Amino acid sequence: MVAPACGTIRPMSISERVAGLYEVLHRRRDTRGEFTGAPIPDEALHRVLTAAHAAPSVGLSQPWDFILVRDDTTRRAFRDHVNAERGTFAARLEPGRAELFDRIKVEGILESTLGIVVTYDPDRGSPAVLGRHAIADAGLYSVCLAIQNLWLAATAEDLGVGWVSFYREDVLRRLLHIPARLRPVAWLCVGPVAGLPGKPDLERVGWRTRIPVEDVMHHERYRERSSR
Amino acid sequence: MVAPACGTIRPMSISERVAGLYEVLHRRRDTRGEFTGAPIPDEALHRVLTAAHAAPSVGLSQPWDFILVRDDTTRRAFRDHVNAERGTFAARLEPGRAELFDRIKVEGILESTLGIVVTYDPDRGSPAVLGRHAIADAGLYSVCLAIQNLWLAATAEDLGVGWVSFYREDVLRRLLHIPARLRPVAWLCVGPVAGLPGKPDLERVGWRTRIPVEDVMHHERYRERSSR
Repeated sequence: MVAPACGTIRPMSISERVAGLYEVLHRRRDTRGEFTGAPIPDEALHRVLTAAHAAPSVGLSQPWDFILVRDDTTRRAFRDHVNAERGTFAARLEPGRAELFDRIKVEGILESTLGIVVTYDPDRGSPAVLGRHAIADAGLYSVCLAIQNLWLAATAEDLGVGWVSFYREDVLRRLLHIPARLRPVAWLCVGPVAGLPGKPDLERVGWRTRIPVEDVMHHERYRERSSR
Repeated sequence: MVAPACGTIRPMSISERVAGLYEVLHRRRDTRGEFTGAPIPDEALHRVLTAAHAAPSVGLSQPWDFILVRDDTTRRAFRDHVNAERGTFAARLEPGRAELFDRIKVEGILESTLGIVVTYDPDRGSPAVLGRHAIADAGLYSVCLAIQNLWLAATAEDLGVGWVSFYREDVLRRLLHIPARLRPVAWLCVGPVAGLPGKPDLERVGWRTRIPVEDVMHHERYRERSSR
């Protein structure tokens, strides 16, 4: 497409905003191998964290914290722990799957620009958090909504995000001096990337295929389907 | 601003896409009282569910299901249960807070166009879900990421979304024939709205104020701060 000869900026239409959101949402990837290690502009990082902090939360509790980890020693210690957990998982697999798993990268801890560790603080807004009395995990759910906001904002800013989940929560607590009452929810590898893959890594290598959206839609009540 | 006299459509720039995402992300609200009950165009609903289904998931397990509830009898039964749970929560509050809570609407179950119940299926992609061996809740986290995608897409489509969490999971399971192995994560009220409030309801009525993003940021390790 060629831009029209049109010198001034016109306001964005609703359909353009919608298209912009969907573009980001479908382009987003869980990033492992594409980090360049280049710096993140301060303003972009601030916008991304502000986006996370704008997430909905049960009872407006905003029960998240974000720990930015740049220190190399800390990151190496975490990477070593993740490698050990990778081995634990691999040992449980059948031979064919283990061979396939061997080719899958599960983290970009050192190659990314920084780690953002996201935690859940159940005491935030206590004792009576509106909307949490019947579902204790509702606070934990809020933290995940913030993570997805962060992920989409980072994608829009042309940054990659990779969620590492091969770790024991207690190990991460000790490493970052996180009090026992808080729960670490994610270590996110964040930073500029050479590009984002068109397909999820796990689909590309044949670990698992995506299922059609129709398979997860139900009307009026849940209906059992063949296993997916 | 006035649109320039410019007849053709030009491609969206990266900065426009970024601006579009942030606009949606900060405009999003947890909607209670603004539903009109008007129909949702089928294409818009499909785009919103496709957006949810494009969320990241641990081991590409895509462990979510979406149950669309339009039936009036089902919705009334759920609304009655939510009202009872509202009473349970209110009974725990101190008098001043109880009075304030009395003025807060916690659901738009009947006024919204439909309910979307989102569930977590831990068997999806089992037995060896990549990335879940050390953190069993990682599958539940994936479901929340899908919910935030849904919420943002709906906001872009000018639909409101309200997350209802005043319910017991077993009651919702029975109501929608959800098997015991699945976990209901949310009842989302979805539909066209008269508008979205500029501030969260709970902030507007003085239940709780938002905290500055700087208060939840840490560097290299977690640092205790005064309670928030």
